[in-house]
Formats: sequence, C-alpha cells, structure tokens
Amino acid sequence: MAKFYGIGVGPGDSKLLTLKAAEVLKQLDILYTPEAEKDGGSLALEIAKPHFSGELEIKYRHFPMSFNQGDKESKWEAVAKEVIEDVKRGRDVGFITLGDPMIYSTYVYIMEKLINQIEVETIAGISSFSNIAASQNLPLVMDKEPLVVLPCTADESVIDDAMKKYSCLVLMKVYKRFEMIREKLEKHGLVDYAVLVSNSSQGSEKVYKNLREIKSSEKISYFSTILVNKQYGSKNKDND
Amino acid sequence: MAKFYGIGVGPGDSKLLTLKAAEVLKQLDILYTPEAEKDGGSLALEIAKPHFSGELEIKYRHFPMSFNQGDKESKWEAVAKEVIEDVKRGRDVGFITLGDPMIYSTYVYIMEKLINQIEVETIAGISSFSNIAASQNLPLVMDKEPLVVLPCTADESVIDDAMKKYSCLVLMKVYKRFEMIREKLEKHGLVDYAVLVSNSSQGSEKVYKNLREIKSSEKISYFSTILVNKQYGSKNKDND
Repeated sequence: MAKFYGIGVGPGDSKLLTLKAAEVLKQLDILYTPEAEKDGGSLALEIAKPHFSGELEIKYRHFPMSFNQGDKESKWEAVAKEVIEDVKRGRDVGFITLGDPMIYSTYVYIMEKLINQIEVETIAGISSFSNIAASQNLPLVMDKEPLVVLPCTADESVIDDAMKKYSCLVLMKVYKRFEMIREKLEKHGLVDYAVLVSNSSQGSEKVYKNLREIKSSEKISYFSTILVNKQYGSKNKDND
Repeated sequence: MAKFYGIGVGPGDSKLLTLKAAEVLKQLDILYTPEAEKDGGSLALEIAKPHFSGELEIKYRHFPMSFNQGDKESKWEAVAKEVIEDVKRGRDVGFITLGDPMIYSTYVYIMEKLINQIEVETIAGISSFSNIAASQNLPLVMDKEPLVVLPCTADESVIDDAMKKYSCLVLMKVYKRFEMIREKLEKHGLVDYAVLVSNSSQGSEKVYKNLREIKSSEKISYFSTILVNKQYGSKNKDND
C-alpha cells in the first residue's frame, strides 16, 4: 500500500540522514518540496539529493511562510489534496524537512492534514542542536538536570524565566534576535558557558566559542543555534 | 591519524543510525562495549552489530553504573588509559551509546577523559524522544513554545515547576517513578495530552496512549519515555 513519508534530513551533511531515511528516499515515486527560495534553492533538497533514485518526480510547490494564517492554510490545504490524490493512485510520496520533523518544523502543518486520510510515516532526523553538541564534544545535559529548548522568538519573559531557572539550554532561531539573547545571557551569568554555531555540518559552518567577541555588525545566519551548559560549557572552551 | 569515535546508535532499530555512524563502525579497528549486563547483553551492541566489519575487535569492559563516584571514576579511568594506548598505536577506536551521545549518556564520562589526549569525534544519534514523536506523528514542539526535557529522577519540585509552566515536555527515565509522574501529570492537568512509549523501535516496543489505563502492577520498561504536548497530544489519541 502506498504511503506518505515525512523525512527528517538532519542539519546539512547528507551523511547525517538515517539509513532508514536514505532507503525511503530511494524508493519514493514523488517528492514534494518548496519552490526555490530567495537564496537560490532549498537546503533540504540539496541535503537529500545524493539519495534520490533516477526516476524520482520532484514537485515544486509554494509553501508560504507568511504569518497570514488564512492564506497559509489554504496553500497547505491545496498541496495536501494533491498529495492525497497521489497516494490514493498508488504512489509513494515524500516530503523532506530540515533537522527533526517534530521540532519546530512546518512539516507538521501538512502532516496534520493527511493523518486521517492516508497512511503517514514520519522518519526522525538529527536536530541541529544534537549535531552541534556532538561536533563540539559538548554534552547537552547529564544526570538529573533538565534541558530547555527555547526558540528565541518566544516572549522575553519566557526566555528570562528559563535562563534564570535552568543551566542547560538550547536557543534556536537566534537570527535577528542575537543582540537581545546575548544581553540576556550576560545578565543571567550564562555567556561564559555558551557556544553559537551557524550552519552546523554545512560547508559554511561557523563556530563562535566566545559570544562576547561577535561584532554587532556580524550577520548571524538564519540557521544558528546557541548551546548553554553551566557544567560543561566553559571546559569546552579550554579544550582549544 | 587514528581517532576515537563516540557513536550514537539511536533507540533500537539498526536502520536509525546515521549513514555516517554506519560508515565509521565499518572502519573501526576496536570497539569498547560494556560487559554483558544482567538482562543478557548490551542493547547498543545488538543495534550496532549489523554494521560491523569482519575484523572488528570487540573489547568487553566493565563500566559500573554504581553511584559510588570514586569507584566509578577509577574504572572509567582505566578504560580511558587503554583507549588512549590503542589510538596512539594507530587504531581507530569506537564506543557506542544508545540514543544521542550528548543527552544523559555515560559516554560523556569517558569522552571527558580523552578529549585533551587524543582526537575525539562524537557522532550524533536519534534520541528516543525524537523517534517516539516521529513514530507517533506527534509534534514535540512548534512555533514559539519551549520544550522541556526532564529526567524523572530530578527533584520533585523541579518536575512540578516544569509541569506547571510548560506545555511541551519530554519525561525520560520514567522506570520506577511512573506512579509519581502519573500523579503529577494528573495534578497539573496534563495526563490527557501524554503518551508513554517503551523500547521505541525495538521488537518489544509498547505504546500506552492512555496513561490512566496502565495498571499499577504493570512493569514499566527501563527504556520508557513520556511525551506531553498540550496542543497536539489529545488530537493524537483521536487519530486511532
């Protein structure tokens, strides 16, 4: 029976897909992917490409990122309808998404529209924070500690509260909020235990071990994540 | 130059390793792994086995899980010394660990002892919670929400505080603390949005969508995780 697969492709390196994800990509008939973005293409597509079979049909569709909920809904609805038709006529259909499909991914918008209509299988992917921690040999969290994953787009009071209470944090979607986040890390005594990594495992990866040294003029990449670990974060800097 | 590799093997299915992890396993000269445990063997070893080359030398060593810090330290120290010798005589050495090496893994104890002595490369793995979310088609977290990953061994006040404040939670190391956790989920109005999965992606996987129905006599597996999502958790139950 044909299926719809939501596939996490990880943060950048094509070898960070799971064996399962790579196998499924090879067997797909159709892949849905966002139309070329302003920056000249879809990163998820570049990551997945080495695993495509020759016969794969790629359907470029428009997935708006606008905040206009109504407009967004109707576009996703249209794609969902097309996906359902493809699966019902026996095609294995895939949708690829960066990192882990269940962590802050718009994949969920389409998954929700398919779930009661056709068979949906989601395949986990390596999240950017998991890969940053591994590549920096920096533990995310140990023993009895909690870990808080926080989007920097959250309300400032939520960010303050988390920084006050927890000593292991992942700060995602840093982007244009870097200055605000840096100030808060300083205020809560966490900046010495923080590392910022942009474009993890991509050719353009950048590691900033000292957040104080980042110039205000520096353009922080869209794909940037800060890890904070009060127990291990400063040791990490000493290892250089 | 020879290296030490810390390799995350994911939650259970041998196909949930990354392509990178599988490649590294094939190239290793020596693999260190814990001596057979009471339950008859190391799960990580079973998961990794399909990826071993014929010439791999497996060194079974004793990694105590005792809480006696001094005793634990000296055992890890002894293994670290042996690993360093192996790498210095040109062998590629590996250590495998369940799930993600940077999330509550004792791998960190040995990594810390090697990091300034030899080259250490850690390879990310799929965490149990990432795989549970994917296999249940249940988002961990979306939009501006924070996600809290909490070991059930944490102080009860820490657990209460997190359950009061956050609506997306991952509760790890449930095990013998299940009754306490279930009471707290009930108290904080979260039990309807929770799912418990044991042995994710293993042959013995068990999914409990209604935590209220779990009998007190039920033995909750050591590898059990609860996901809570106030926005998506109850929809998930309706999908059956």
